[in-house]
Amino acid sequence: MSKTAYSALCARHVRMYRLSHLHSIASWDQSANMPAKGNEARSLALAEMGGLLHQLATEAELKGLLDAAAQEDLDDVERANLREMQRAWRASNALPQSLVEAKSLANSRCEHAWRSQRPANDWSGYVENLREVVRLAREEARCLSAVTGLAPYDALMDQYEPGMRSAEVDRVFGDLRQWLPGLIRDVLEKQSRETVLRPVPPFAQAAQKALGHDAMQLMGFDFEAGRLDESAHPFCGGVPEDVRMTTRYREDDFLPSLMGTIHETGHGRYEQNLRRDWLGLPIANARSMGLHESQSLSFEMQLGSHPGFAGLLRPLVVRHLGDQPAFEVGNLNRLLTRVKPGYIRVDADEVTYPAHVILRYEIERPLIEGQIEVEDIPALWDAKMQELLGLDTRGNFSDGPMQDVHWGAGLFGYFPCYTLGAMYAAQFFAAMRRETPDLDARIAAGDLASVFDWLRSRIWNEGSRWETPELVRRASGEALNPAHFQAHLRARYLG
Amino acid sequence: MSKTAYSALCARHVRMYRLSHLHSIASWDQSANMPAKGNEARSLALAEMGGLLHQLATEAELKGLLDAAAQEDLDDVERANLREMQRAWRASNALPQSLVEAKSLANSRCEHAWRSQRPANDWSGYVENLREVVRLAREEARCLSAVTGLAPYDALMDQYEPGMRSAEVDRVFGDLRQWLPGLIRDVLEKQSRETVLRPVPPFAQAAQKALGHDAMQLMGFDFEAGRLDESAHPFCGGVPEDVRMTTRYREDDFLPSLMGTIHETGHGRYEQNLRRDWLGLPIANARSMGLHESQSLSFEMQLGSHPGFAGLLRPLVVRHLGDQPAFEVGNLNRLLTRVKPGYIRVDADEVTYPAHVILRYEIERPLIEGQIEVEDIPALWDAKMQELLGLDTRGNFSDGPMQDVHWGAGLFGYFPCYTLGAMYAAQFFAAMRRETPDLDARIAAGDLASVFDWLRSRIWNEGSRWETPELVRRASGEALNPAHFQAHLRARYLG
Ligand SMILES: [Zn+2]
Ligand SMILES: [Zn+2]
Repeated sequence: MSKTAYSALCARHVRMYRLSHLHSIASWDQSANMPAKGNEARSLALAEMGGLLHQLATEAELKGLLDAAAQEDLDDVERANLREMQRAWRASNALPQSLVEAKSLANSRCEHAWRSQRPANDWSGYVENLREVVRLAREEARCLSAVTGLAPYDALMDQYEPGMRSAEVDRVFGDLRQWLPGLIRDVLEKQSRETVLRPVPPFAQAAQKALGHDAMQLMGFDFEAGRLDESAHPFCGGVPEDVRMTTRYREDDFLPSLMGTIHETGHGRYEQNLRRDWLGLPIANARSMGLHESQSLSFEMQLGSHPGFAGLLRPLVVRHLGDQPAFEVGNLNRLLTRVKPGYIRVDADEVTYPAHVILRYEIERPLIEGQIEVEDIPALWDAKMQELLGLDTRGNFSDGPMQDVHWGAGLFGYFPCYTLGAMYAAQFFAAMRRETPDLDARIAAGDLASVFDWLRSRIWNEGSRWETPELVRRASGEALNPAHFQAHLRARYLG
Repeated sequence: MSKTAYSALCARHVRMYRLSHLHSIASWDQSANMPAKGNEARSLALAEMGGLLHQLATEAELKGLLDAAAQEDLDDVERANLREMQRAWRASNALPQSLVEAKSLANSRCEHAWRSQRPANDWSGYVENLREVVRLAREEARCLSAVTGLAPYDALMDQYEPGMRSAEVDRVFGDLRQWLPGLIRDVLEKQSRETVLRPVPPFAQAAQKALGHDAMQLMGFDFEAGRLDESAHPFCGGVPEDVRMTTRYREDDFLPSLMGTIHETGHGRYEQNLRRDWLGLPIANARSMGLHESQSLSFEMQLGSHPGFAGLLRPLVVRHLGDQPAFEVGNLNRLLTRVKPGYIRVDADEVTYPAHVILRYEIERPLIEGQIEVEDIPALWDAKMQELLGLDTRGNFSDGPMQDVHWGAGLFGYFPCYTLGAMYAAQFFAAMRRETPDLDARIAAGDLASVFDWLRSRIWNEGSRWETPELVRRASGEALNPAHFQAHLRARYLG
């Protein structure tokens, strides 16, 4: 039996993959390099390409090819690839091209303006652009909802974490809300008896950059297939063959940039280790945003805050920043595990981080569902920050709803993935420890290969071969179980 | 009378303009940023886009639209735009899409390998890739020749300098060959009596970079619409709204990078000053490669080697590199006008530069016409370098035929433009002096506005409004006249 239709589908996907390569690099450049006056032309160029890719993903022949391929004699891998092609087709065909182009333009404009509005704390300027972004996101949610039968917010979330529903998020976040406040209280109480020396600034940007490069090397990043640059909001972009990570530097503190870089390195290695022989086809893609975040959190939290990690980091820190009492191993470990409620999600420790995510989830869901408007965000933000972390954020938009790029870039339904990722990561490391009982000693000795090999074979190389629940079960031996996250936090912070 | 067809053509050109924006930025990135392992995927992505742009430029409907638009009631500007659309259509339709894609892939591969082969003096490795590039360039020349009725080499050259023929190049270069060797001899004789202090290295890269930025500012570059980065071979890329210039640094000498940067700034300002209200349409484009080079040489040679320019440069040099005896104004001027036969075209002074171009022209023309093969290049190169500049280049491929990116990138018929550009520039400055008799005093006083305003109104803002001979006549009051170039060299170097 021939595979004509399947082969034709593969050729079309490879073509889209190649064209989207240019979109990815130009998007990275827009954040990392582009001067101000280039933005209008870049936004128009990216929108044109977004429209073209959408057009290619919705060509009339595709439906027939997908139906024909389903009747062909495919092996298991080809069948999984076809399943992902079908999923991509459903997602693309839910949206009219005019909406795709309008979204690209509005998101790009909002995000670009945000780069100067955030430092100026200019909420009213920002909200003018955000209103249009939200309007289009609601329209998108309606379109996706009509096709999938899901509720509007669930339909958006399903793009990033296929199969996840807000009912399930409610259950998991409900579980968290039960024990998290008490755990934060206990940890703060325990840590209040510890003495922690703050590193004494300044830390020159060039030295931090060199330190970041060494840390990426320690974490196995392949610099022949990627770069580290700077942007207002750190991200991991580019393409699997050429991963473009970004960070930002503050002269008064080096840890946020360093640990942010280690975080993005987790994303970067996932991309760098997707199977080369599948690249260009949907089956090669990273499985989901939650899984992606599980890899960055494996690097930043499971490894980065591991009691043995300070000993690995110390020589690099001393090499680039010189020595000082704060860099003593015990103190470095206390710095890396310090819990302190704060304004900024990306700077948050792993104990308070879930609170930031719950807050965003509780705002973006009613925002998409039309129960609130963009003007209502600040008051809700202030109330929830007070309630969850006891912080006063009134009037501080820069460190409040303007701190993240997501909403301005039209990403709604994405935030829950961060905390799902933290749970996956804890579950994966629990599985590793069952298989390799001396894992913690190995990590402390700088032998990170056991961790990387496990992640490579169980997660990175699997791409989108399995749907998320199956991938998690195959990798860790059981379905998603939030108990591992709680056990991890208790052992590390109260053990 | 409606302009339906003309409007439809404009919309199609704007779409191509936006998509080619992504190609330009990704190409720049390939030279300035990309790590080694990214090359295969990037080459495939650029080839895919090259093929797509070619497909859009050759769509069946275009011929009918072009014919219909010719019957519509267009004003003079629209008619000039239509003329350029027709020219673009003829050029695009001469080549089958498979050839366009093969060329893109072969050129990209050859150029990438060249980046490591050149430092290794690896001619035999380079020639393996170059052979395929030449094979495809000959095929291209045959296709273009069939459409235009021009000889194969003329057909290639016509893409870069429309209307220029090798008979005319023979005439101009024949004129040069008459007086250039004697002039070089006289200048070397005169300069042998001068004392010139060499700047004492080292010159830190960061200081040179800052100096280059200041020089670009002096020359009016808009940093909100462009950048300066590094690449193996300096070039000016990007898009008019976001010009991406590159340079390279040597710690033992700062002048090659500085003057190269000033050169590229001339290209950059031409692009930055193309008419905004025409952008996206062919009429907005820079007129030709020879005209483009006339702008870079106006900056690098007409201004950069002007007797008053050393006084403008000195404060910048001293600010970034500290002072030393070599930076005294008179000595700096002698350095900037020093004539010395050398291996490297891009480092050549303006007196010996034409010899480098004649040499390349005399090799690439028979190469395209099939009278010689790539294996014959080194022997011809060695013989002509000896004959024209008295230099022995045997075995030194890095500083010989591997010094330029052009041939590896498939650019044949381009080299003559450099010397045509030098002649245009000399003619333009002669015209400026007739209109502004105190021009030289203004330049010496740092008042460069007269020069920039003249170039902006006569050249930059005109885009492709006129064909080259008409643009030159309108700008300077007469047709191309090589006597201005000779007079310029005699006045500056023997005056
Ligand atoms: Zn992340
Ligand atoms: Zn040039």
